[in-house]
Amino acid sequence: MAEKTLEAKVKGLEAKVKDLETKLTAVHDIQEIKRLQRTYGYYLDNRLWDDIVDLFSENTESLEISDSGVYLGKAGAKRFFKGFLSGGGLPPGRGSLGTHMQLQGVVNLKPGDDTAKGRWQCVILLGVPYHNELTAMVGFGVYEVDYIKEHGVWAFKKMHFHLIFRTPLHEGWVKTPVVYSMAGGKPDKPSTVYKPLPERYVVPFHYNNPVTNKEPHANF
Amino acid sequence: MAEKTLEAKVKGLEAKVKDLETKLTAVHDIQEIKRLQRTYGYYLDNRLWDDIVDLFSENTESLEISDSGVYLGKAGAKRFFKGFLSGGGLPPGRGSLGTHMQLQGVVNLKPGDDTAKGRWQCVILLGVPYHNELTAMVGFGVYEVDYIKEHGVWAFKKMHFHLIFRTPLHEGWVKTPVVYSMAGGKPDKPSTVYKPLPERYVVPFHYNNPVTNKEPHANF
Amino acid sequence: MAEKTLEAKVKGLEAKVKDLETKLTAVHDIQEIKRLQRTYGYYLDNRLWDDIVDLFSENTESLEISDSGVYLGKAGAKRFFKGFLSGGGLPPGRGSLGTHMQLQGVVNLKPGDDTAKGRWQCVILLGVPYHNELTAMVGFGVYEVDYIKEHGVWAFKKMHFHLIFRTPLHEGWVKTPVVYSMAGGKPDKPSTVYKPLPERYVVPFHYNNPVTNKEPHANF
Repeated sequence: MAEKTLEAKVKGLEAKVKDLETKLTAVHDIQEIKRLQRTYGYYLDNRLWDDIVDLFSENTESLEISDSGVYLGKAGAKRFFKGFLSGGGLPPGRGSLGTHMQLQGVVNLKPGDDTAKGRWQCVILLGVPYHNELTAMVGFGVYEVDYIKEHGVWAFKKMHFHLIFRTPLHEGWVKTPVVYSMAGGKPDKPSTVYKPLPERYVVPFHYNNPVTNKEPHANF
Repeated sequence: MAEKTLEAKVKGLEAKVKDLETKLTAVHDIQEIKRLQRTYGYYLDNRLWDDIVDLFSENTESLEISDSGVYLGKAGAKRFFKGFLSGGGLPPGRGSLGTHMQLQGVVNLKPGDDTAKGRWQCVILLGVPYHNELTAMVGFGVYEVDYIKEHGVWAFKKMHFHLIFRTPLHEGWVKTPVVYSMAGGKPDKPSTVYKPLPERYVVPFHYNNPVTNKEPHANF
Repeated sequence: MAEKTLEAKVKGLEAKVKDLETKLTAVHDIQEIKRLQRTYGYYLDNRLWDDIVDLFSENTESLEISDSGVYLGKAGAKRFFKGFLSGGGLPPGRGSLGTHMQLQGVVNLKPGDDTAKGRWQCVILLGVPYHNELTAMVGFGVYEVDYIKEHGVWAFKKMHFHLIFRTPLHEGWVKTPVVYSMAGGKPDKPSTVYKPLPERYVVPFHYNNPVTNKEPHANF
């Protein structure tokens, strides 16, 4: 009898430990995904194009940059980012700056899953040619991103960047919301949506209200 | 004898597993609280007033916005945020912008507790009417927030926003620290403190120095 | 036989629980390190010099501020930060501002280790004297930081701040990348590197590409 109780206790412990393992993995996965996204930010700032492309899974669905277009697969992501090498929109030379901060990250992951989704804000600080002169620009946008875990490592599966504004600092985002167009490699398809300022576009949320679990809705 | 040892081992394991569960819950809770606060940021950017109000607990104590006043209970929070629907300080129309980034989040939670506290910085990017013209504004402030876990879900219990500056981008925060006043619903009480620039006010810390565990103190 | 099986199960559980403990500690450590760095940010904003110095380990190697120099040991860190008390570069008075946001934090830690490394972006919002007039300035930089856990508490072991720009808001980071020099206490040695804009310097990464595990490399 006592032995059976002990056996039952061990069985109970095994179930609990298994549950703890799954939950701990999920908490760690969220840390890893944030590390991935923020590393992408550091690489982008520094024009580390090969390293950026390596952050995309071989099974990448698409990269969509709202003011440029849709790039299919990892090959598409590579074409977009490496397009900047040949004189595209991100600055290569002395005095230039290409900071894209990855901020306010929310990652949603069901324990046990090997896919996840995230939402990030991006503050952009640039030093780029404009009317033939290097110009300080400031920008803002929102990322919605899908992640995938393969062989224990998280990578990008799908990335969608929505530009809100990108404008000379001295003019501001109200006067001239977007003056500067991205010019990486050629897209496979036009963007599915492109509504920067002065539009008031709510970038769709991949996740429900964390308290009510209802879909968020605009009422303005 | 051997059996007794095994029993003792199982008992030890049960205690350890219980301890791990409590600690893992705390680590997960901190992730959930950050997700709540950052989601609040996304909702605020997008004028999702109903969804914002839903992030407040039914047992909300108060919402204090330093340049507006104190709003009591969840009803007060609702009155403040939904006040913007009727033409208050946050922009409704074309060309407008209401970004309030939730940054540098610190959350403090004792394992096992169902309440927690947090501190956040807020960078504000606005496109709002000023002298009858939409104007790019930049702002900054600090949040001190209390959270509560109810039925397994974290919500806001108390929120206090301290405005530091909110000013036209082209004028800067030194020349005109605050030109723009929030105008949601009517407050229940005046603010307990409102000291934006040019004051040098240290927003009180809810937590001690993480290394010395002493209360932080200004010496300037 | 059955008893032996049970013994084996208990042994297996003990190993698993030990492994879970190590992994959970690592996840928690990363949260604690981020809390340390962000608290440093809040203290810096508020000129809480004594509290900042307390965040440095007794075994601090060095503090390097790229536009100032290298400060050795905790004594060096203290000399740098408390140098601001006597009229150095961070603003003491009415109307002044010294915000240094700690953003996009990446922390790398091997489970079981009591040291870790991190990388952070810093957005700087200042109100400081410039040509004898309080002036709104904006800045940007990158931190590479070493952390150490002593008696269960994380502290700074080594800190290296790389300034990218610090400039009047109305001039922008392209026209005048750096106009404002830090002036804390006297350094022990000159900086090992100082390459703000217009240089295009890639601050060395302490960690490899999270997907390929290769060292990141610039190809521009």
